[in-house]
Amino acid sequence: MKIPTGLALNLLHRCSTGTLATHSIALPGYPFATTLPFATDSHHRPLFLISALAEHTRNLQGDPRASLALFDPDALHAENAARLTLVGDVTRIELDDATRKRYLRYQPQGERYLELGDFAFYRLEPRRIRLVAGFGRMGWIEQDTLHALPELDADAETARLATLPVRSAICGIDRFGIDFLSDDTRRRTDFAGALDDDALDDALARLTF
Amino acid sequence: MKIPTGLALNLLHRCSTGTLATHSIALPGYPFATTLPFATDSHHRPLFLISALAEHTRNLQGDPRASLALFDPDALHAENAARLTLVGDVTRIELDDATRKRYLRYQPQGERYLELGDFAFYRLEPRRIRLVAGFGRMGWIEQDTLHALPELDADAETARLATLPVRSAICGIDRFGIDFLSDDTRRRTDFAGALDDDALDDALARLTF
Repeated sequence: MKIPTGLALNLLHRCSTGTLATHSIALPGYPFATTLPFATDSHHRPLFLISALAEHTRNLQGDPRASLALFDPDALHAENAARLTLVGDVTRIELDDATRKRYLRYQPQGERYLELGDFAFYRLEPRRIRLVAGFGRMGWIEQDTLHALPELDADAETARLATLPVRSAICGIDRFGIDFLSDDTRRRTDFAGALDDDALDDALARLTF
Repeated sequence: MKIPTGLALNLLHRCSTGTLATHSIALPGYPFATTLPFATDSHHRPLFLISALAEHTRNLQGDPRASLALFDPDALHAENAARLTLVGDVTRIELDDATRKRYLRYQPQGERYLELGDFAFYRLEPRRIRLVAGFGRMGWIEQDTLHALPELDADAETARLATLPVRSAICGIDRFGIDFLSDDTRRRTDFAGALDDDALDDALARLTF
């Protein structure tokens, strides 16, 4: 079936934690799954701030091949809930200042980890995404589709955040929606498709708080 | 550090869904993570009722090596929450009648899947369990420790369930605690350690509803 990319982006942005599968070093030949916090960059790629001491980090240093499972945080039952698996390579990355600040707006507790010294940023570059939108509604989204998504780069995002009268609760803006933190829970306002610069500025001007 | 097995059992029994990492067939060499419902058998081993059409099932048929990540369902933030990874082999199994009924008390919607015909039971036989009890508190529980846990077998459990005056909300009884479904959420009453038959019957007699 034709998979709605917008639904995948919506779920990706509403999740503040996911479960990462890596190749185990402690038990060679076994996959290893761990739950951890994440946020996305301006290309909707998951970013992780992880400790060199953590099992998943050691596993990634041995083999970058991984996948991240996400599950609708508002759904009670797994069988009806939309869920997503991003498959790709997770590698260490130095973030530019704007992207680092974006990560910390989504995951404010990351400030403390950065002070500890053994934490570093890693990024998942998705090769394919598996979306199960509901019972019997499932399919793959390919890397080409992801690469073709229009980007709002981190500097353009920062400039727009600066124009908003009240922005304390806003984590991020992209061409498909706006992410908020509300009572420690991530929320998203979705646009109807990708917005160009003018339409995005119109949408931001109409934001009410 | 010495890892408290009781804490691991508590988390294992309070989770109704987990994320299973398998070896991907669609993307060879990559681990694949998917979220799905589960329940435990009388040896605290996770049981899954999964479709032959699902990605994870096809992956398991190719390679049984897997791991299951669990995350405290009552915790808001991944970094403080207790979490667990069970690493082991997941293979198809025919359940005896008492264990099948136990599964369906925990996951009542499983009745519908069994009628569809392409669903079957699989069981995770843990080799090691990784417990992260909180920031900096982590360690492994070995298979020997798990095998040494005293069992309440499914028939003994069924007999005890039959003695309880009101049992509609009770999913399961083991020597370490009692599991309930309350408003579609799994809850657990923990004992202080493993109970023998007499102590267990005393505990059940004192249950209030």
